[in-house]
Amino acid sequence: MQYHLDGYRPGDPRIRAACAREHEGETVDVLIVGCGPAGLTLAAYLAGFPTIRTRIVERKSGPLERGQADGVSCRSMEMFQTFGFAGRVIEEAYGVNEATFWKPDPDEPARIIRTGRVRDVEDGLSEMPHVILNQARVHDLYLETMRNAPTRLEPDYGRRFVSLKRSAPGSGSGSGPVTVTLERSDPGHEGETETVRARYVVGCDGARSGVRGAIDLSLKGDSANQAWGVMDVLARTDFPDIRFKSLIQSAAEGSILVIPREGGYLVRLYVELGSLAADERVRDRAVTSDDLIAAANRIFAPYSIDVQELVWWSVYEIGQRLTDRFDDDADDPRVFIAGDACHTHSPKAGQGMNVSMGDGFNLGWKLASVLTGRADPVLLHTYSTERQAVAQGLINFDRAWAKSMSAAPKAMDAAPTLQERFIEHGRYTAGVSVQYAPSALTGAATYQHLAPGFPIGMRFHSAPVIRLADGKPMHLGHVVEADGRWRVFAFGDGADPADPASALARLCAFLSDAPASPIRRHARDGEDIDAVIDLRAVVQQNHHTLCLTDLPALLRPAKGHHGLTDSEKVFCRDGAAGRDIFDLRAIDRDAGCMVIVRPDQYVAHILPLDDHDGLQTFFDGALSP
Amino acid sequence: MQYHLDGYRPGDPRIRAACAREHEGETVDVLIVGCGPAGLTLAAYLAGFPTIRTRIVERKSGPLERGQADGVSCRSMEMFQTFGFAGRVIEEAYGVNEATFWKPDPDEPARIIRTGRVRDVEDGLSEMPHVILNQARVHDLYLETMRNAPTRLEPDYGRRFVSLKRSAPGSGSGSGPVTVTLERSDPGHEGETETVRARYVVGCDGARSGVRGAIDLSLKGDSANQAWGVMDVLARTDFPDIRFKSLIQSAAEGSILVIPREGGYLVRLYVELGSLAADERVRDRAVTSDDLIAAANRIFAPYSIDVQELVWWSVYEIGQRLTDRFDDDADDPRVFIAGDACHTHSPKAGQGMNVSMGDGFNLGWKLASVLTGRADPVLLHTYSTERQAVAQGLINFDRAWAKSMSAAPKAMDAAPTLQERFIEHGRYTAGVSVQYAPSALTGAATYQHLAPGFPIGMRFHSAPVIRLADGKPMHLGHVVEADGRWRVFAFGDGADPADPASALARLCAFLSDAPASPIRRHARDGEDIDAVIDLRAVVQQNHHTLCLTDLPALLRPAKGHHGLTDSEKVFCRDGAAGRDIFDLRAIDRDAGCMVIVRPDQYVAHILPLDDHDGLQTFFDGALSP
Repeated sequence: MQYHLDGYRPGDPRIRAACAREHEGETVDVLIVGCGPAGLTLAAYLAGFPTIRTRIVERKSGPLERGQADGVSCRSMEMFQTFGFAGRVIEEAYGVNEATFWKPDPDEPARIIRTGRVRDVEDGLSEMPHVILNQARVHDLYLETMRNAPTRLEPDYGRRFVSLKRSAPGSGSGSGPVTVTLERSDPGHEGETETVRARYVVGCDGARSGVRGAIDLSLKGDSANQAWGVMDVLARTDFPDIRFKSLIQSAAEGSILVIPREGGYLVRLYVELGSLAADERVRDRAVTSDDLIAAANRIFAPYSIDVQELVWWSVYEIGQRLTDRFDDDADDPRVFIAGDACHTHSPKAGQGMNVSMGDGFNLGWKLASVLTGRADPVLLHTYSTERQAVAQGLINFDRAWAKSMSAAPKAMDAAPTLQERFIEHGRYTAGVSVQYAPSALTGAATYQHLAPGFPIGMRFHSAPVIRLADGKPMHLGHVVEADGRWRVFAFGDGADPADPASALARLCAFLSDAPASPIRRHARDGEDIDAVIDLRAVVQQNHHTLCLTDLPALLRPAKGHHGLTDSEKVFCRDGAAGRDIFDLRAIDRDAGCMVIVRPDQYVAHILPLDDHDGLQTFFDGALSP
Repeated sequence: MQYHLDGYRPGDPRIRAACAREHEGETVDVLIVGCGPAGLTLAAYLAGFPTIRTRIVERKSGPLERGQADGVSCRSMEMFQTFGFAGRVIEEAYGVNEATFWKPDPDEPARIIRTGRVRDVEDGLSEMPHVILNQARVHDLYLETMRNAPTRLEPDYGRRFVSLKRSAPGSGSGSGPVTVTLERSDPGHEGETETVRARYVVGCDGARSGVRGAIDLSLKGDSANQAWGVMDVLARTDFPDIRFKSLIQSAAEGSILVIPREGGYLVRLYVELGSLAADERVRDRAVTSDDLIAAANRIFAPYSIDVQELVWWSVYEIGQRLTDRFDDDADDPRVFIAGDACHTHSPKAGQGMNVSMGDGFNLGWKLASVLTGRADPVLLHTYSTERQAVAQGLINFDRAWAKSMSAAPKAMDAAPTLQERFIEHGRYTAGVSVQYAPSALTGAATYQHLAPGFPIGMRFHSAPVIRLADGKPMHLGHVVEADGRWRVFAFGDGADPADPASALARLCAFLSDAPASPIRRHARDGEDIDAVIDLRAVVQQNHHTLCLTDLPALLRPAKGHHGLTDSEKVFCRDGAAGRDIFDLRAIDRDAGCMVIVRPDQYVAHILPLDDHDGLQTFFDGALSP
């Protein structure tokens, strides 16, 4: 955590200096409709930019307090790290270490027995754990991030989306091309109509999204025929694995998924309620919470569960549905949808909240880049392209997974067992298998061989390093913050980087001095040299053999009002067993390479260290001059 | 982190449910004078007890914002862990990984060169790092802990201690035997006198403590003759190790200690200002901050430092002084002093804040135990005994260390070098070498051989384990919270703990059922079974081979309003390389043992697993029946 750059400020460094707030009531840059995981991720991202005016509105009267999603994938934890709250989530959440599998006892099929146990996340998949935490607490942490950001962004509750009207594409962006009508229900303003003009509108308003309807998109997909109940309970039980994630398949009573929850006592149960007839909805069945508890006890036999407090419950049918696109216009998108507004699926793969947050994160840096003038609005086209493909992949995965969960154990004998499928899909559920297709943001695999461990289009997989300036062992990926900046990680070729003839020093010379340098071209007058593109070097030398002050000045830039040295730009290989980033990510030790990382942590491109032209060309495509 | 035991509560689990607040203005249980590290540690401890009425007053008008101490030892971090904020400190602080040593270049003595480098903390000394963080931020975290505690304790600023008067020892504790007079300076009340009646008064009011004077104690010790300056700066420099803790000894210009600080830019410099004449005070010299900066530049040669912002600075002389005792009465102590009020020393060993916090932590659980009726007031006698000896040890250490720092490098040739001394004293500066002498709280070493890695009287040295219920790899020591409870760690002898004939099961049977069981005797009606003594088992079996539900009920107790199972009582050996607690702490695998740990994390006693009588006898001495 770097702070005090522009002078000493007492107090919590997480609370950033407030920027001047513009007059209320004028046109906003971004109006976010809905305070769910997608909307709050987007709002938290945009809140960090003093020049961007964001509003976020929510139909409900206040923050969520219980229920809904609870799975936080490794990938989402990596994203939380960029916002600075991954550590608090780890402290507070249930960490999923292992999953157990239960099936009917072959000798006495009415009784379940444990048949298997697997590690939940394979070693080395991510430096972050898979955790379970109430969605409400995830919201709280985003809301705190927004409050602590320079813009001190707070949601406006009690606003229902009614309609939107956009001016004809291209007709004067200054005045705000989208007009949104909201109906207020906050105290003292019930029934009042509010009009907001916004340059961009993002509908994060859930499966029954009004924004989606207003731009004539609709969810398409399967009709659902499996009914499930879900409940968060404080309960007494003799089921031995109540604190393990457990998948239980009974002989005749259906399945349960046990998800232990934060705090050591709470547990979530997903309980199978059987097949639905065509066009039947689970709500038609008038299932009560007592029905759910009774079903759970039948499946748990010979164990039982005695619910002391029912914290939250719901019933739902599994349905995988998706919109064709996530924006309103292929040429000049001004209205976007994200999260459940554009994709719905079963909750049991634990993906819903995560993919929704991924939508917000993807759109966040793109809107920020366009609104700060760093990138051409054409960048926004990639949101729908990239995230619709991710959602389609999720739905394909979810369909297969839901089928596995609902299949009777007998029928599974020929197919892969649930346990086998669980392992196979581990990377998917961890959220680290997303790979964006080649585009202006994602280069071709020409030089992928220089670092096969950083697949282009996939998230930058962090690995340990030692920071040169202070000998700190740390994770390289944790230098990425949710700040809209690009990173160029220059991995050294083994030559002494203090030698001006080394490839690393020559790269620095190009970036410092050449008129074509993307770092020079994209930083504005008065800005720090790393305001848009943040160069970090990772060298093969032991940190005791190098001195930061001998390295190129670009690797120890003077920053801020005082011209202080930023000494956190250079990292060394960690020599401890199993911690060498060059080994872990298979980086070519003879050639080194550059790894360009997008603001959302995805690997954009890999280039040879001396491909200065290639670097320039890439950023010409990704950023505005 | 365990929560939701008595029902689901939305929001941040760190903010505990508020208890009813008593009417203001009545007699308080504890009046703490001074909001420094000692006072705030004590206040944060007591704030967790709903039945204890605490007030904390401070002469200044508000919280500290800059300057003063900054070193947080490993041991203090272990203590922060019990309050729940160690993780935030790690995120925010500078972590000391290595220290470097600089001396005159033999070929050109006016120039310093790096002569050595050591790891700051030896491997395995603590699971916690040595960090550097502004004392003001440590205060902030304690203040937040107090605000989030059931009593929502807040300091009263603008109160200067004037005098105290205690009634004759033994004369009716109900009415509050100590009357304290304060002078107010808070807005609107300037000059008003306030009278507080308190059962106990604790003077944490610094080196010029008024409380100390009021109980006729005085600091005794050396007159000081080494003058030093200290400054926190934002500066430009070409000194290569500005982000390493560095000890610089110049040939003729004196010494500097460089302490990099939180946030990546700030740095603290301790600058030697030379010897003082007898009875000379450094303040008499009218040293300016420019003098300090100039002296620093002379010592740094050939490097230089260009101060851009002087955040805080001070000059001081080194003096090691100590009071004879830390309370007012050997038979019935009612007034205590803690921190700088009873011991002063040079700041450069980085011990001052840490030992002061240790005072507060030691007194905190003792006052809480007495005020909640768990222990006889005689327990309070041990505060002065234990902590005066620690302070004396600190002063002895500090005197030797300060001498090393000020010695000219030439004179050091015969003696151990500063670098050698640094390593030798590493355990001391980490704060883990404190060992309390045998007493009612600290047993004899009769069974020390059963676990030589847990020396009786020293802090419980945490080690990794796997939690049985959920397979979580974690640190055993982190089950200790700042809650006034004792822990009994029962390390298994290898027998199956599900077998009623095993020593562990027999211990549980004794503790559950025997009238002599200290757990039964000290828990009140309606309290959870672990309200006073918290039993945890650590077994040698792999966690896949045991089921919590097969173990004695005492190891999975029903707790709280709902009778929910606390499933965090049993831990297994971690089989990963270098992580087996039985190896790491040399626990007798054939015999097992019990390790009794005090509320302040110190090992009180070690007993054989079957020494039920010994356990009973120990708690008879430590707790009230």
